[in-house]
Amino acid sequence: MKLKLYADRMSQPVRAVIIFCKKNGIDFEEIRVDIAKRQNLTPEYAEINPMKQLPAIVDGRFKLFESHAILVYLASSFPGVADHWYPADVFKRSKIHSVLDWHHSNLRRGPTTIVRNTVLAPVLGRPLNPEAAAEGEKFLSASLSKIESVWLKGNGRFLLGGNQPSIADLSLVCDIMQLELLGETERNRLLGPYKEVQQWIENTRNATNPHFDEVHKILMKAKEKLQNPRMKGATNEGGGSDMKRTLHSRI
Amino acid sequence: MKLKLYADRMSQPVRAVIIFCKKNGIDFEEIRVDIAKRQNLTPEYAEINPMKQLPAIVDGRFKLFESHAILVYLASSFPGVADHWYPADVFKRSKIHSVLDWHHSNLRRGPTTIVRNTVLAPVLGRPLNPEAAAEGEKFLSASLSKIESVWLKGNGRFLLGGNQPSIADLSLVCDIMQLELLGETERNRLLGPYKEVQQWIENTRNATNPHFDEVHKILMKAKEKLQNPRMKGATNEGGGSDMKRTLHSRI
Repeated sequence: MKLKLYADRMSQPVRAVIIFCKKNGIDFEEIRVDIAKRQNLTPEYAEINPMKQLPAIVDGRFKLFESHAILVYLASSFPGVADHWYPADVFKRSKIHSVLDWHHSNLRRGPTTIVRNTVLAPVLGRPLNPEAAAEGEKFLSASLSKIESVWLKGNGRFLLGGNQPSIADLSLVCDIMQLELLGETERNRLLGPYKEVQQWIENTRNATNPHFDEVHKILMKAKEKLQNPRMKGATNEGGGSDMKRTLHSRI
Repeated sequence: MKLKLYADRMSQPVRAVIIFCKKNGIDFEEIRVDIAKRQNLTPEYAEINPMKQLPAIVDGRFKLFESHAILVYLASSFPGVADHWYPADVFKRSKIHSVLDWHHSNLRRGPTTIVRNTVLAPVLGRPLNPEAAAEGEKFLSASLSKIESVWLKGNGRFLLGGNQPSIADLSLVCDIMQLELLGETERNRLLGPYKEVQQWIENTRNATNPHFDEVHKILMKAKEKLQNPRMKGATNEGGGSDMKRTLHSRI
């Protein structure tokens, strides 16, 4: 029976899991759960993930949620996943756990908070919240600094000095990609000082393309709409209310 | 060479790691890093953990931080650790990862936030912050509800229906124990509605005693001092400034 993946591609942990599956030839059925249509809050979805969040998987009789746990499970259970994604060596593996745990309390609190409280707020009909955005920016800057001074230390092209990506690279990079929604200028202001981070994002993208770009298409479309609100009526997808609905349905 | 564990027992993830080592007969040297004396901010400690947090371990040439990653490493690398702590079975193991990942964004944001912004604030010379405390209480209540309705579902005495504890039980219970600092009345108000959580804390305590109580002694002492400030001059440890110094040195 094919792996079922419950997904909304506007979610960064969802994208990390999809890219991982595609890159590693894991056959899966993508089941769209539209967050803004509150499909994640239905009793049906609560049967899959009682925490009502995305992503979640069902593999035969086995259900699992939390993207890091899913990535570890997939790397451990599916044949043909190269060792570098989640090495069997206990020392290398432990370092990857350390990055993933660190991610939760640091980087993860940056991009989403900024995006939600700035560019997305008006679209979602919520007030701008500069204080929350500033708090998110603090987490982001501190995290990017640490990524450069700690995790990207060494000569490798990936975290922990690796020459090939691990599940940690994919998870963290997908998170940072959320900043695309802010538009070129703002994204460059935030990422500009972090040249090594920028190179690492590019390395991770190259190592997982064409899947990386394909899975991020939805984000780029949303970005265009947010940056060119006057074009909203000119797109094939319809007028302003449609744009709001589309974006609202994804974040 | 003996495992080195960098620790301040007022920190809940530190306590989880110490109890795990003691319970599993892992020989270690406990190296005190006094957070309030800013010993975690020294260049010497940054060599151990560049993120400047506790706990961290050094095992021969191998360094590791983040308590969940440490618990997984210890369970995987030291002989004699019973399978139930971190099962070899990929399905059971994945569920434990799921709990631990969930912990980061949920329960972990409860007890510490409440304690820091209420009972500890005056001791630390900081203003009370009822808003932050309320936010922490929101995370705590939501998390305790989910622990009962999701993680403690089933007939087992531990998380995920287990009859023996895993590293997830230890990590989460040590976090909730931080509420002891609030004193009996307030702790009971917060935990009172959650009978199954209370029973599970007791089960985890019983399964790991005498180490659980021994490692939590420092917390109980701090609690006594916070609850009986008038007694502060009567203790062997000296006067009020000493109490402040002692507590300050630990949180």
